[in-house]
Amino acid sequence: MSDVSPDLGFARLDLSRPRRTGMAETVYCPGKTAGQLIAILRAFAAAGQSVLGTRCTPDQAEAARAAGLDVAYEAVARVLTLGAPAPATLGRVAVLTGGTADLPVAEEAARSAAFLGAEVTRCYDVGVAGLHRLLARVDEVRAADVLIVVAGMEGALGSVVAGLVEAPVVAVPTSVGYGAAFGGLAPLLSMLNACAEGLAVVNIDNGFGAAVMACRMLRLAQRKASHE
Amino acid sequence: MSDVSPDLGFARLDLSRPRRTGMAETVYCPGKTAGQLIAILRAFAAAGQSVLGTRCTPDQAEAARAAGLDVAYEAVARVLTLGAPAPATLGRVAVLTGGTADLPVAEEAARSAAFLGAEVTRCYDVGVAGLHRLLARVDEVRAADVLIVVAGMEGALGSVVAGLVEAPVVAVPTSVGYGAAFGGLAPLLSMLNACAEGLAVVNIDNGFGAAVMACRMLRLAQRKASHE
Amino acid sequence: MSDVSPDLGFARLDLSRPRRTGMAETVYCPGKTAGQLIAILRAFAAAGQSVLGTRCTPDQAEAARAAGLDVAYEAVARVLTLGAPAPATLGRVAVLTGGTADLPVAEEAARSAAFLGAEVTRCYDVGVAGLHRLLARVDEVRAADVLIVVAGMEGALGSVVAGLVEAPVVAVPTSVGYGAAFGGLAPLLSMLNACAEGLAVVNIDNGFGAAVMACRMLRLAQRKASHE
Amino acid sequence: MSDVSPDLGFARLDLSRPRRTGMAETVYCPGKTAGQLIAILRAFAAAGQSVLGTRCTPDQAEAARAAGLDVAYEAVARVLTLGAPAPATLGRVAVLTGGTADLPVAEEAARSAAFLGAEVTRCYDVGVAGLHRLLARVDEVRAADVLIVVAGMEGALGSVVAGLVEAPVVAVPTSVGYGAAFGGLAPLLSMLNACAEGLAVVNIDNGFGAAVMACRMLRLAQRKASHE
Amino acid sequence: MSDVSPDLGFARLDLSRPRRTGMAETVYCPGKTAGQLIAILRAFAAAGQSVLGTRCTPDQAEAARAAGLDVAYEAVARVLTLGAPAPATLGRVAVLTGGTADLPVAEEAARSAAFLGAEVTRCYDVGVAGLHRLLARVDEVRAADVLIVVAGMEGALGSVVAGLVEAPVVAVPTSVGYGAAFGGLAPLLSMLNACAEGLAVVNIDNGFGAAVMACRMLRLAQRKASHE
Amino acid sequence: MSDVSPDLGFARLDLSRPRRTGMAETVYCPGKTAGQLIAILRAFAAAGQSVLGTRCTPDQAEAARAAGLDVAYEAVARVLTLGAPAPATLGRVAVLTGGTADLPVAEEAARSAAFLGAEVTRCYDVGVAGLHRLLARVDEVRAADVLIVVAGMEGALGSVVAGLVEAPVVAVPTSVGYGAAFGGLAPLLSMLNACAEGLAVVNIDNGFGAAVMACRMLRLAQRKASHE
Amino acid sequence: MSDVSPDLGFARLDLSRPRRTGMAETVYCPGKTAGQLIAILRAFAAAGQSVLGTRCTPDQAEAARAAGLDVAYEAVARVLTLGAPAPATLGRVAVLTGGTADLPVAEEAARSAAFLGAEVTRCYDVGVAGLHRLLARVDEVRAADVLIVVAGMEGALGSVVAGLVEAPVVAVPTSVGYGAAFGGLAPLLSMLNACAEGLAVVNIDNGFGAAVMACRMLRLAQRKASHE
Amino acid sequence: MSDVSPDLGFARLDLSRPRRTGMAETVYCPGKTAGQLIAILRAFAAAGQSVLGTRCTPDQAEAARAAGLDVAYEAVARVLTLGAPAPATLGRVAVLTGGTADLPVAEEAARSAAFLGAEVTRCYDVGVAGLHRLLARVDEVRAADVLIVVAGMEGALGSVVAGLVEAPVVAVPTSVGYGAAFGGLAPLLSMLNACAEGLAVVNIDNGFGAAVMACRMLRLAQRKASHE
Repeated sequence: MSDVSPDLGFARLDLSRPRRTGMAETVYCPGKTAGQLIAILRAFAAAGQSVLGTRCTPDQAEAARAAGLDVAYEAVARVLTLGAPAPATLGRVAVLTGGTADLPVAEEAARSAAFLGAEVTRCYDVGVAGLHRLLARVDEVRAADVLIVVAGMEGALGSVVAGLVEAPVVAVPTSVGYGAAFGGLAPLLSMLNACAEGLAVVNIDNGFGAAVMACRMLRLAQRKASHE
Repeated sequence: MSDVSPDLGFARLDLSRPRRTGMAETVYCPGKTAGQLIAILRAFAAAGQSVLGTRCTPDQAEAARAAGLDVAYEAVARVLTLGAPAPATLGRVAVLTGGTADLPVAEEAARSAAFLGAEVTRCYDVGVAGLHRLLARVDEVRAADVLIVVAGMEGALGSVVAGLVEAPVVAVPTSVGYGAAFGGLAPLLSMLNACAEGLAVVNIDNGFGAAVMACRMLRLAQRKASHE
Repeated sequence: MSDVSPDLGFARLDLSRPRRTGMAETVYCPGKTAGQLIAILRAFAAAGQSVLGTRCTPDQAEAARAAGLDVAYEAVARVLTLGAPAPATLGRVAVLTGGTADLPVAEEAARSAAFLGAEVTRCYDVGVAGLHRLLARVDEVRAADVLIVVAGMEGALGSVVAGLVEAPVVAVPTSVGYGAAFGGLAPLLSMLNACAEGLAVVNIDNGFGAAVMACRMLRLAQRKASHE
Repeated sequence: MSDVSPDLGFARLDLSRPRRTGMAETVYCPGKTAGQLIAILRAFAAAGQSVLGTRCTPDQAEAARAAGLDVAYEAVARVLTLGAPAPATLGRVAVLTGGTADLPVAEEAARSAAFLGAEVTRCYDVGVAGLHRLLARVDEVRAADVLIVVAGMEGALGSVVAGLVEAPVVAVPTSVGYGAAFGGLAPLLSMLNACAEGLAVVNIDNGFGAAVMACRMLRLAQRKASHE
Repeated sequence: MSDVSPDLGFARLDLSRPRRTGMAETVYCPGKTAGQLIAILRAFAAAGQSVLGTRCTPDQAEAARAAGLDVAYEAVARVLTLGAPAPATLGRVAVLTGGTADLPVAEEAARSAAFLGAEVTRCYDVGVAGLHRLLARVDEVRAADVLIVVAGMEGALGSVVAGLVEAPVVAVPTSVGYGAAFGGLAPLLSMLNACAEGLAVVNIDNGFGAAVMACRMLRLAQRKASHE
Repeated sequence: MSDVSPDLGFARLDLSRPRRTGMAETVYCPGKTAGQLIAILRAFAAAGQSVLGTRCTPDQAEAARAAGLDVAYEAVARVLTLGAPAPATLGRVAVLTGGTADLPVAEEAARSAAFLGAEVTRCYDVGVAGLHRLLARVDEVRAADVLIVVAGMEGALGSVVAGLVEAPVVAVPTSVGYGAAFGGLAPLLSMLNACAEGLAVVNIDNGFGAAVMACRMLRLAQRKASHE
Repeated sequence: MSDVSPDLGFARLDLSRPRRTGMAETVYCPGKTAGQLIAILRAFAAAGQSVLGTRCTPDQAEAARAAGLDVAYEAVARVLTLGAPAPATLGRVAVLTGGTADLPVAEEAARSAAFLGAEVTRCYDVGVAGLHRLLARVDEVRAADVLIVVAGMEGALGSVVAGLVEAPVVAVPTSVGYGAAFGGLAPLLSMLNACAEGLAVVNIDNGFGAAVMACRMLRLAQRKASHE
Repeated sequence: MSDVSPDLGFARLDLSRPRRTGMAETVYCPGKTAGQLIAILRAFAAAGQSVLGTRCTPDQAEAARAAGLDVAYEAVARVLTLGAPAPATLGRVAVLTGGTADLPVAEEAARSAAFLGAEVTRCYDVGVAGLHRLLARVDEVRAADVLIVVAGMEGALGSVVAGLVEAPVVAVPTSVGYGAAFGGLAPLLSMLNACAEGLAVVNIDNGFGAAVMACRMLRLAQRKASHE
């Protein structure tokens, strides 16, 4: 495994990444042909590495299976995985959503975090228009090491949660909504301007990015714990 | 008083407005010279009508006083009044703010509503980053007939309040904030996309407009009660 | 019915809402599978509650019917209802539109308001480019307790109507138009900047939200009348 | 005067313009030093041509006078003129405004049109929030050959006027307003999306541009009349 | 024909328009069902009036024909006409385009202008990247009474043409282009900021609106000529 | 200290915050009068709590000193502190900047993090246009527990750093730049779209928010370490 | 070949272009019917000129072949060519991409540059999130005469490359990405604000435009070399 | 001179830049204190290197002189230079402007290009509204090796010039204008969408960046010529 960046012509794989960053490599599936995706997955399989594919279509997943690759696929999360997930030893991530329409993004976050080694608590449909739903689960929320808050429309859940906990909060605006939501711009701006502290924001609909950010925090904690 | 729209050259006054809409006329002061403002106020004084001036500068107020007009002026609210307010018989408006920086807009709303005949409850600095502050005053909030929610930054207070009450909520985004608040765009979009129902929005920083909207609702209630 | 927020896994229903806010619960249908929608409707049916579904597709409505649910469906308004509407005792809402293309949003508002207990007057296609059409119906417009003004393109109807009546006006910008309408941004900004007072704005195309806002006002009037 | 484009180093004057386009040359004053402006005015004076300066500051006007140039200056319109206006034979332009704050732009339009040879009717402060003010002057408005409608905030006056007349309407959005007016964006979009026909739009605050457009129309009429 | 605004339920026709504005009524076809469109056309046919339908799809046109209406349809311009055009006596409009992709909008302008009574000169594909193409036709361009300049991408043709002629120019930005054209925003802003004078702008892709504006100018000329 | 939220009229202080969130309270100074700021600081002093003021002007700091408060003030960072900082036991935060103009924001982050208990490494002026500057300090960068990347203009430093380390990265776009930087929009979008993983973003110029986010991560690590 | 601008009715061809600008004519294919495209290609074939078609669909290419035209077509680049490319004597252009999804734009650039006479080096998938990939190829990159950097998402590659070389860099933002990429706006702003010097930007996805810009530079070098 | 990146604490100078990129180092002056600027200039003076300061205020220049530094300063261009310019051997750059208000940006470009070794031709005030001004100087324009086109408002000059020459064109949008120019957004979009080929764009008002881009092209030509 001397050459850790095999060049497939259309892509240069980064097989040294797990060693370098401690996390499995991932593949962003949109825009890749079935053939390209299969070639990439085979390279990882050949290297004995697990890999996570995001925004994967059912057709892409089916093509990978038809090519004899032993992949798992979650349709709502649009997540494809090859190989075993990391052992669930990093800590606990809670994923919250404002409404049910945020589910695909939340599940992308939840399944990515689980694949990278986190335990995951799901608190779905606890939007701020009915505060009692969130308050009823506040102990569960406070028990998590890191919070991922997924919300579209006005995106107010991020501020409210960050004000209730002392753990770091990763906010994910979603493109859920219509009209003046402008494809997720409204919750994005809302979360960036949160009056609560201890919250940072990833790209609209980027559940996967939130999961990686959360897991980097948990790995930091793990490293520091092991040094004490 | 046969001619109800005297033409001052630079402006046509609408002296029939109280009769037509049931509410006192108002003057938007920015861009008016002291001379123009004084001429307008004198016309109302001559007609024996009360009038409310918004966004009035201390200099404009001082000039009006120096011209012998018996005006009152509130510096934080930037509100000038001439003549007596309407009797406080319309009902109760609660004005809430997310933070202290929203005060000028909130006071414009509160003083305008009072001038137009409402009783006003102030619940300031009850932003969602510290929910306990709002929850501690929820009874007071629920006791109001109409809510005016004034908030900048992420503007989440509107949604949360609308979910806690059954009264109509008028939301006022403010230009408080910096960076991605973009002059009030963030709370404006947030409030327009509120997942809670029973909330409508006025222009950024438009405390006065919220007060008029609230008072129209109270007058509607008054009319309907008198018809029963 | 001790547990008023049954958790269906993907959603937490708010069966205490009618008791808490005085209005029936509603379901925002987009993004829900037929199975999810049916499960939600069944839960309301089991609780003996009426429910209103907005932005419902014909396919969703058909699936609900096929599942044996006794729903009614209005295709233009994209509104699904289960159970009886509230008795029409709240008062009168007039729904106005600028043009015929605003019809789906206007009908969503009209049918929602009716379901929630309002009597509804429709004044369609009375846009400001032909003022005589609006002026011909001004008595009807002034007879309403609350006005809902639905307009796309330049959205000027809101200002004009708010200047003609003393009742509160809820303005609904629509995404009708092309080019520099930018998906409803033009009428949204226009309505937010209305020089007329007594007008507040809901999200683009949000006919349902306007109806709830109007009905909250009417319920306020009802409450106040009953206290006198 | 063989060389009609004298090069002053920092600018190339277009002295052939009156001959080529039938209208006097104009100078956009912002960003020009007093020295540059004086040099330009002297070149026109030397060529015996009238010239109109727009957006001229009082200091610039004063400097021109101090340099011995026989200029006239209107402070509200920020218009400087040198030499006689064209005879008022082109036809009649009516300039309408929504509110008094639109006055500087309206006066720029009115004085420019007058300088270029139009008769001007002013109908100020006839915004759509009080339709009776506009309707009271509808005969005057209909008597004009061309309409210039100047409005900020929601800019609805353009549509309403275009629906009332059969003459062409030039709409000028202004930067009057605050919050979601976004420096004139709101009335600009509103006017571009006017549901009325027979209206075209110039840049925000561009009263001068509207005047030139109106006068080109009147000159077209004059040319065609002289050919019949 | 005593009732000039028959109410079809979904629309109120304005049969008095030709008498009031001197121009035929028009129908904006998008969003109308075939049934609605046919009902509208039949009402005009019954009143003996010509009518112009814009943005008409081939299916809508086919349905009108199948319903026995004697309509004409131009597929590129997406224009449907019923009844005879006005006699071509108003004057000459030249329609210019920057590129061939602007053709549908240009043809909408050209055919609308012709239907309303103008003679039309077409100067297509004369964009500023190859100035010789425009300069070769400058005499033809200068011979027109009114210019309609249709351009997408950077929209520079408007400024260049307005600098070459003394006639009024109506500029139509188009949504032709990609990337930073942002659906026509680029040419729209470009045309609004044209450094040339004597140009006004209509909505993106609004060829019809440009035609009406041009014809209003020509009718103005006609009226003034008949008064001399 | 039974009442932990004293109400100063204009603000409700949250003295229970250190106990609740483990971090000192902070005051956002803009828009507060000297009197208000002094009253707030005195309340904290009376409660024996440290407090951090952000965006504090020299005049505000001077007024606090003149009122006898024992405050420290850093002019570049615009940070005021009252009371002792937390002991530096949380871990190490590295603050990086693209250029020298990002210094005020970076110093706000650095001093806030230090006040909250972090050790701070400063790597300033290591922008991507001269990669050698960053690569020369890569060991120092990799030695930090959390990275705060402060950059204006194109904001590319965030992506590059996140690709070089395995620690979590908090990115702070700044309003440094001109033209198409649009007040920080360019680096904000750039950072949100970072192709590197493990990065989340706070508001434009929000150095303080980045510090709180970083310290929440370090406190998480501390908590987890103490549980092992 | 006396008439160098044949008018096909819908388009005016510019057959003098090669003589005038030294580069082959090109056809932007979108919006052209197969018939129009074939007519254009035939005119070039008749004139014995090579021509390059961009954004050509497979159907358009197939139609051209079916019409007997001897065209070549590259599906990824969406580039159609007729006739021989220019000899590869201009110099060397390196095309770099951030990721594999940028391939279609990069290939449009690469194939266009090759057709116009450049030698092309491809360095794909060398985005800044894994700097080692770019640094591994830095000699190849520095060996090129002109760099074309194609990147979506945060578009940081432009700055980094411009800082590593002394050759001019043409940056092409792509619409690759989602959420806050806003169709390429993020990398566009990023590249325009590049802190590195020696970089200029073309439209989003405009690989062809970058190739022409690069080749103009190479032709400049060739001209100057031939003059020495 | 072994350490080529001296660290001044607030900045790391890049003294190896001339060797690495062949061009003098430059300093972006805004946001730097007089003390910082003087320290930077002294470091360059000590290293015997010339340096160019952009956006330098008169006060900064005066402070540098008062500190004994032998600097030259051009107030219109806001350019400060220390040390001798490069010999004028690179080739000829023509700088064109649309209007006189673009002068500061154009002079920044012209003086920067001259300092870096180019000969400069100035063609100012040749905007497209008066094409004859540009056409009169077309030979001069065509004689240049590289064109820098500086234009605000609608920015059309870029397209027109790129269509007239075969040399590469660097377009600089300026913030000159008002209203819908939106701080230079209008000419920026216009230039990015130029229908002419052979043009690339730098940031709004970035005259200096255009000069560097132009000089990189000329240096490329010089390198290639020396290799032949």
